[in-house]
Amino acid sequence: MRWSQSFVPTLREDPAEADAPSHRLLLRAGYVRQLTAGHYSLLPLAVRVRSKIIQIIREEMDRIGAQEMLLPALHPAEIWQRSGRWELMGQEMFRLRDRRGADLALGMTHEEIFATVAQELSSYKQLPRQWYQFQTKFRDEPRPKSGLLRVREFTMKDAYSFDLDQAGLDASFEAYHGAYVRIFERLGIPALAVDASSGTMGGSGSTEFMCPAEVGEDLVVHSPACGYAANIEKATSRLPEADDGPGDPTPEPFDTPGVRTIDDLATGYDAPADRQIKTLVYLLDGRLTLVLLRGDHPLNEQKLADATGAVSIRAAGPEEIQDALGALPGSLGAVGVTGHPVIADGALRGRRGMFTGANTDDVHLRGVDVDRDIPVGTWADLREVAAGEPCPRCGEPLRIERAIEVGHIFKLGDRYARAMGAEVLDPDGKRVPLVMGSYGIGVERAMAVIVEVHHDDKGIVWPLAVAPFQVAVVVAQPDDPETAAAAGDLYTGLGAAGIEVIIDDRAERAGVKFRDVELTGIPYRVTVGRRGLAEGVVEVTARATGETVRIAPAEVVAHIEGLLA
Amino acid sequence: MRWSQSFVPTLREDPAEADAPSHRLLLRAGYVRQLTAGHYSLLPLAVRVRSKIIQIIREEMDRIGAQEMLLPALHPAEIWQRSGRWELMGQEMFRLRDRRGADLALGMTHEEIFATVAQELSSYKQLPRQWYQFQTKFRDEPRPKSGLLRVREFTMKDAYSFDLDQAGLDASFEAYHGAYVRIFERLGIPALAVDASSGTMGGSGSTEFMCPAEVGEDLVVHSPACGYAANIEKATSRLPEADDGPGDPTPEPFDTPGVRTIDDLATGYDAPADRQIKTLVYLLDGRLTLVLLRGDHPLNEQKLADATGAVSIRAAGPEEIQDALGALPGSLGAVGVTGHPVIADGALRGRRGMFTGANTDDVHLRGVDVDRDIPVGTWADLREVAAGEPCPRCGEPLRIERAIEVGHIFKLGDRYARAMGAEVLDPDGKRVPLVMGSYGIGVERAMAVIVEVHHDDKGIVWPLAVAPFQVAVVVAQPDDPETAAAAGDLYTGLGAAGIEVIIDDRAERAGVKFRDVELTGIPYRVTVGRRGLAEGVVEVTARATGETVRIAPAEVVAHIEGLLA
Repeated sequence: MRWSQSFVPTLREDPAEADAPSHRLLLRAGYVRQLTAGHYSLLPLAVRVRSKIIQIIREEMDRIGAQEMLLPALHPAEIWQRSGRWELMGQEMFRLRDRRGADLALGMTHEEIFATVAQELSSYKQLPRQWYQFQTKFRDEPRPKSGLLRVREFTMKDAYSFDLDQAGLDASFEAYHGAYVRIFERLGIPALAVDASSGTMGGSGSTEFMCPAEVGEDLVVHSPACGYAANIEKATSRLPEADDGPGDPTPEPFDTPGVRTIDDLATGYDAPADRQIKTLVYLLDGRLTLVLLRGDHPLNEQKLADATGAVSIRAAGPEEIQDALGALPGSLGAVGVTGHPVIADGALRGRRGMFTGANTDDVHLRGVDVDRDIPVGTWADLREVAAGEPCPRCGEPLRIERAIEVGHIFKLGDRYARAMGAEVLDPDGKRVPLVMGSYGIGVERAMAVIVEVHHDDKGIVWPLAVAPFQVAVVVAQPDDPETAAAAGDLYTGLGAAGIEVIIDDRAERAGVKFRDVELTGIPYRVTVGRRGLAEGVVEVTARATGETVRIAPAEVVAHIEGLLA
Repeated sequence: MRWSQSFVPTLREDPAEADAPSHRLLLRAGYVRQLTAGHYSLLPLAVRVRSKIIQIIREEMDRIGAQEMLLPALHPAEIWQRSGRWELMGQEMFRLRDRRGADLALGMTHEEIFATVAQELSSYKQLPRQWYQFQTKFRDEPRPKSGLLRVREFTMKDAYSFDLDQAGLDASFEAYHGAYVRIFERLGIPALAVDASSGTMGGSGSTEFMCPAEVGEDLVVHSPACGYAANIEKATSRLPEADDGPGDPTPEPFDTPGVRTIDDLATGYDAPADRQIKTLVYLLDGRLTLVLLRGDHPLNEQKLADATGAVSIRAAGPEEIQDALGALPGSLGAVGVTGHPVIADGALRGRRGMFTGANTDDVHLRGVDVDRDIPVGTWADLREVAAGEPCPRCGEPLRIERAIEVGHIFKLGDRYARAMGAEVLDPDGKRVPLVMGSYGIGVERAMAVIVEVHHDDKGIVWPLAVAPFQVAVVVAQPDDPETAAAAGDLYTGLGAAGIEVIIDDRAERAGVKFRDVELTGIPYRVTVGRRGLAEGVVEVTARATGETVRIAPAEVVAHIEGLLA
C-alpha cells in the first residue's frame, strides 16, 4: 500500500481528551476516531490490526474444534425474558421498539441466542459442541472512557460450549482456558488467569484473563511466589489464627460518648480494630440485612452479591438504619438482633472477647462471643484482601495490581439451556438440559491492551503478529527519481515475497516520515536515501530496539525474511 | 472438517414457511435458521460462504484502491438530523434512547458517518478517496420475507467515494461500476446494470445491479437487442408520434352520465383511451397536485417522486378532491384549474383534440388542446412503460422481467459533505464541499441470490468460488476400517494440497450422505466405498453435471486440482 493514498491522519500533538496511553496513541497515530462517546471509527490501519487479532483468535478456536457462526445482533425481548435477564440487565442493555411496537434488545452477550440454536441438538452423541462468532456487542456503559478500553459498541469473539454434564463442561472449559492462554501469548498480552466472580452470568465458576496495566480498572491479587491469582472480588488470604483466650461470660455494655468509628473506639477504649466487629447495614434486593466483618477488614460488595445471590445491593441510609436497629451508624451491632438476616465474614468465626455497638447511641459492648451472642444466618467470604497479606496457597505476601480484563470464561451450568428448552437425550434415553459454558474476548479492547503493553515515548511498538504492516519503506527524497525508483523496486520486491509492506511515498520531509513510522508502530523501517544509495546501502531499522543495519538493496528481502522468521 | 463434528442440520422436508427457493434451500440444507422475522442465524456452512463473498468483494474494492474501515453501527441522532434524514427515513430507521435519554439510530446506511470522517481531508491533493467497510445494517422492513432476501439486519459492503468535483465523481463511479461487474461475475450472479431512481439517497444518478429471478420484487425493463436496461422506475420507451390533426377551436363540454372510468368514456363516446387525459390528484408533501397522463398510460409513483422531489406522496381522497376541484373522480380535469400545481407526462405534450373531465360530475370536455388549455407547470416522465413498447434506444420491443437488486451505486453530489462540513481546499485555495458517491452490496442477499440462480431439484449448486467446501469425501461404509482409512488418507491428502475439504464420516447410510452433499451444494464429491476400493478406484462426482469418473485413490488430488484450476 502507498502511504500517499492511505488515510492515516497522524496528529502532531497529544489529543487533550485522551486519558489512557492506548487512547492517546491510537488517536494520535491515526488508527481511530471517536464518533460519539463510546463509539469509535476504525481507520484503515486499525482494520488491519483488528483482522489479525480476529484471525489469531479464529485459528485457536478452530484448533479446539469450535465452529464459527454468526447470530443476530438485534433480539426479540421475549428471548431475554425467558431467561430472566430482560429485567436483570437493567440500564446496560440498549432496548428499542420496532414499527409494530415489539420490544427488542441489542445483544450485549449471546447465551440465550446460542441456546435457541442448540435446541436442534438432539442426542448426547452430538456432544460436545463448541460454537463461536465474531459479532458486535452493544452495552450502554454508564461511563464510556479510555478510547477502545471502555466503549458502548465493540466486536466480541463469544464462544459457547454444550456438554452433557459437568464433567464435559469441565473438559470444554479446560480447552478454552488453553486456547485463551495461546491467544494472549500470540497477541503479546501478558495475561494472568484469575478466579473471578460470575456476576449476572451465573454458573459455577469463572476465570478472567487480566493484563496488568496502570490504567486498569480492576484489581488483581497475586502471589509471585506460587502463581496464585484472583480478581479482588474473589481473592482470599491466609490470616493468622486469633488467640482470644477463654472470653467473657457475657457481653457488657459501656458508655462510649462521641464514638463513631472503628478508630475512635480503638484509640479511646483499648479495643484494637482486629477485636472489633464492624456492623454494616445493606438492602439486598430490598431486604435489610446486617453484614459483619472484623473492624479492620473492608467489605467487597461483589463478594456480598455472590454470597447472597442478590441482584440489587445498596447500603442502607441513616433513617432506614435507625428505624431497624434503633441507633445510628457508630453504635450498631448484631447482638440480640432478631427479624433481620445476619451475614458474617469467616474471619469472625469463633472469635471471643470482641467489641461491637450496642444499638444504643454512644453505647458499645465488650466481651462479645460471636458464636454465642450473634445469630449469624450465613457465614461467607466478604472481606477484601489487602496487599502484603499471606497468600492462601503459599503464605508468601500477596501483591495487588491494577489490570484490564481481556477475556472472561464461565462455567454456566444448565440455566440457559433450561430457560430455552435446549435438551438432548442422554445415554439412558432421558431428556436432559445441555450444560453450557461461555467464553468471551473483546477484539478492539485487545487491540488497545496490546498498545498499553507495547509502546514507548515515540509511539506504538506493535508485536509482529498484529502489526498493520510488517515493513515500511521510507523514501527519504521522493523527488529524486533514482531514490524513488530504488524504493519502488524494494517495495515491489518485498510485496512479491509475501511481506506486508507500505511505502511512505509522501512529499514530506524524511523526519516527518520517520516520526510517523515510529508513531504507527510498524516493526521494521527500510530507509532509502540518496546518500545511502551512493554508498550502495539502505538502512533497516527495528522499531522495538531502534537498531539500524546498513545493507545492500539486493539483500533487503532476504534480510527482512530472516527478521520475520 | 469432519461432518460428524459440524453443525449442518439438514431437513428431510421442505420447511412450510419458505417461499423463495433460496429460503427453502438455505433452511433445508442447514445454512440458516430464523431467530425472529427478518433476523437470521448463519450456521457454519453459511459463515464459510459469507467469508468467500466478502473476500471477493474486498479484493475488488482493494483493486480500485479503496481502503477498508469500520465505522460504528449505532449513531447519535444529531448526525442524521444534520442531513435531514432523521425525519426522512421514517419508520424504516430503528431508533432508541440511551440511559441518558439521548436519541440514537441504528445505521441503515453510512453516508453521514463517513462524511464526518472525511472532515479530516483537507486538500484536493488527497483526492480521490475510496473508503469502504463491511458493517451490519439495520432496517425496520415493513414485511421481512423470503429468508435472506428481505431482512431487518444484514451485512453490507458500503463504499463511499470523495472527489473534488463532478468529473472526479464520474471517474470514481466508473471504477465502482467496473468493480461491481467483476464482483457479480465472480459470484456467479448474472446482474444487469440498470438506470435507477436514487430514492431518499438523492444525487444526480444511480445504477442498480439487478439479477433476474422469479422471486424478484423489482421490475427490470430491457431490450435484448441493444442491451438497454432500466429499473421500471426509470425506464422509458419510444412512442409513435401522435397525429391529432388541426384540433378544435375550443374545448366543448358534453354530458356523460354515469361515466367513471377511462373505459366508460372510450366505449360510450368514441374517445379512445390514447386520446383521453387521465387526471390524478396527489398530495405531494401535503400539497394537492394534479397529475396528468394519457388515458392508457399508468403512473409510476417513484417517477412522480423523483420529478418533484417530494418525500411524502399519497393519492388524495374523494373528499379532498371534491373540496379542491368540485367534482368526484371520473369527471376530473385540469382545464382552467388555478391554485393547484399541474404536472403532466411528456406523452401529452402538443396533443390536440383530447378528452378530459370537466370538474362537474357527469360532464366531460372534448377538443382539448393540452398546450393551449391546460396550465401545465411541470413536464416530466411519469408513465410506467409496458412490455412490448419500443426500446428508447433501438426501437425493438422491450421486455419486463422480475429481478432482485444485488447492488446499487449512487452519484450523491455534495449534499452530505455540505451537511457535515466535509470540505477541502481546491487548487485555487477555496474551500469546497467534497463530491461524494456511495456504493452498496448486501452480503447475505448476494448469498441468497446465488442460490436463486444456482440450484436444481436436488438442492444448491454453489459456484466453486463461493462454495463452503470444494470437495466432500463421503465414506460409504464408515464401520469398515479399510474404507475409513482410505477415506481418511484422501481427506488428509486433499487438505494438505490446500483443497477445502469436508469428510462425511457420519454413521449414516451412504444414500443419506449423498443426499446431504447434493443438498448442501458442495461442487465435488469423492465417494470411497468398499466395492470400489476392491477394484482399486474411488468415484469423483461433479455436483453441477452429476458426471462421475472412477479413478485410483492416488490420482484423486491431482484430478481435483485439475478440476479446480
